[in-house]
Amino acid sequence: MKYEKIPPLIWKDEYLELLDQRYLPHRQEIVVIRNVEECFDAIKNMIVRGAPLIGFTAIYGAILSLMNKGDFEKDIVYLKQARPTAVNLVYELDRCMKIYKENKDESLERLISFAQKQMSKLGENNLRMAKFALAELDKSLNKEKYNMLTICNTGYLACGPMGTALGVISHAHSSGRLNHAYATETRPYLQGARLTAYEMMTENIPFDLIVEGAFSNLLKSGKVDAIFIGADRVVANGDTANKIGSSTLAIVAKEYNIPFYVVAPTSSFDLSMDHGDEIPIEMRPIEEITEVFGQKIAPIGSSAYNPSFDVTSHRHITGVICEHGVIKQLRESKVRDFLNEK
Amino acid sequence: MKYEKIPPLIWKDEYLELLDQRYLPHRQEIVVIRNVEECFDAIKNMIVRGAPLIGFTAIYGAILSLMNKGDFEKDIVYLKQARPTAVNLVYELDRCMKIYKENKDESLERLISFAQKQMSKLGENNLRMAKFALAELDKSLNKEKYNMLTICNTGYLACGPMGTALGVISHAHSSGRLNHAYATETRPYLQGARLTAYEMMTENIPFDLIVEGAFSNLLKSGKVDAIFIGADRVVANGDTANKIGSSTLAIVAKEYNIPFYVVAPTSSFDLSMDHGDEIPIEMRPIEEITEVFGQKIAPIGSSAYNPSFDVTSHRHITGVICEHGVIKQLRESKVRDFLNEK
Repeated sequence: MKYEKIPPLIWKDEYLELLDQRYLPHRQEIVVIRNVEECFDAIKNMIVRGAPLIGFTAIYGAILSLMNKGDFEKDIVYLKQARPTAVNLVYELDRCMKIYKENKDESLERLISFAQKQMSKLGENNLRMAKFALAELDKSLNKEKYNMLTICNTGYLACGPMGTALGVISHAHSSGRLNHAYATETRPYLQGARLTAYEMMTENIPFDLIVEGAFSNLLKSGKVDAIFIGADRVVANGDTANKIGSSTLAIVAKEYNIPFYVVAPTSSFDLSMDHGDEIPIEMRPIEEITEVFGQKIAPIGSSAYNPSFDVTSHRHITGVICEHGVIKQLRESKVRDFLNEK
Repeated sequence: MKYEKIPPLIWKDEYLELLDQRYLPHRQEIVVIRNVEECFDAIKNMIVRGAPLIGFTAIYGAILSLMNKGDFEKDIVYLKQARPTAVNLVYELDRCMKIYKENKDESLERLISFAQKQMSKLGENNLRMAKFALAELDKSLNKEKYNMLTICNTGYLACGPMGTALGVISHAHSSGRLNHAYATETRPYLQGARLTAYEMMTENIPFDLIVEGAFSNLLKSGKVDAIFIGADRVVANGDTANKIGSSTLAIVAKEYNIPFYVVAPTSSFDLSMDHGDEIPIEMRPIEEITEVFGQKIAPIGSSAYNPSFDVTSHRHITGVICEHGVIKQLRESKVRDFLNEK
């Protein structure tokens, strides 16, 4: 079967079109977003997901608020509540507010050009990060082709243009530097099986899916040269909130000495926090675990513990790759210091 | 909803009744096994699963071979091929062969009484192991009630009578010593979500399901006092083959200093092997990952890497609990030496 590349977000001058990621890979449905409430719901209910795309969707939410002559400040506060863990949401909305305050009359045009600029800047930055990542592997491993593993979905579906961690794999593939990719299915929401596998098929990347339980078996086997994950939030010491499973993977990677990189633009950094323990972790409904595509898999009445994210300690991260370079030897305020020097 | 306790295997004098575990928890179907081929298929296709129950089913396969006047030696060789990782299959069939050779004329009666004896001995041994496990926690942690985590299904559905690792939880619960249990859903085959959750509901054990990716988040939170897993094979140094995810869990447990125990009767020991690297690991069909209950979750054409087991290093195991006691400080031939002293 041939799967086609579809952009996850298109601005249509009066409304926003979103690819409904809840039904991928089986159905490619487009949802039209015409106001702030629909925008809020799209983020909350995961029609869109992925930290950068959540941020862009929120910017268009701000734009729709202006176009619909809503209470802008109230709408910004409202949109910030849609999901708690990805810092991009608050980051982009704060910038929207700043633009609004500085350009009252022209703020609509300014916000629209801001949205476009942010997306194209992200694409450029992600390409830079992918190049940093390959250069990093060439320095430490020096192989002609690499086997790479990633978790969740951090590709174009999560970012709009090119992806972050999955962008590294995609770039390695198009540069002839990828041997094989592994994608973890990413229970409970299956972003790996549904979205990353879909993206890889649209780009003809050779891959295998694995379950999260197989981390130790796979990494011990020598089949993986390096691991790349995205980030919902990177704090000052390099601790990183990302999809549930990331920290488990990092601990296992450390056990087998497999390089483990976070690939995240500085818009995913939150230097107001020193340690990962400060990051709020979203708890999601238990049905994400007890049901798959609406099909019950556990006995009726089963309870579940369903944190949507975990925090990977900087001690388990080889490096954080951002648009300015690779931050290594992570420790107390290392990320803050690195950026201060830039 | 009320779930009822159903024995997974009942011998009906002329045939074997198996609870079809593939359809639990939603359908409680009984499958009738009348010959060696049906017995082979029941093991291979996972109508029965769990190392001890696979062993018992195989014994009844040998009995059916005799009753149907098949080629006994050929049938034993055939049955041994049904699944590769659980040592109980070969162990019980070798003992059937020995009984057959020593008791040619009376071998049918002997085998039937052997099967019954093995099952009741397992029940006794598992209760001993559960008591050893609680005593072990009382020595090291000394809490009134414990929070316990287990993977896969190692309860009565896997063992016939009382379970091994899940037996510890069940025993702790009925003794008023369990605070809360956690069960990992155990992708891809979902033995945790389907079977362990089912068993816990039949015994009113308070529990939460988690995904395997949540190991680090959960163990870091302090919500788990101790982890108990079963075994498909324990070798001379304590390395243990068990359901995929076990080794990943053990590595994370070590990171957070959570006690991690293997609970396995000596029938799951294979002292012919020195190291876990020698254990054959069964690769299962990729559809176990790309489909859930027949529903496709990944794009059509996705590939997957699906080892059904992994090997937990003895370095990550606090102790192996068998019917003779707790084997600790695992190292080169420690398990062999412990048993030699018994």
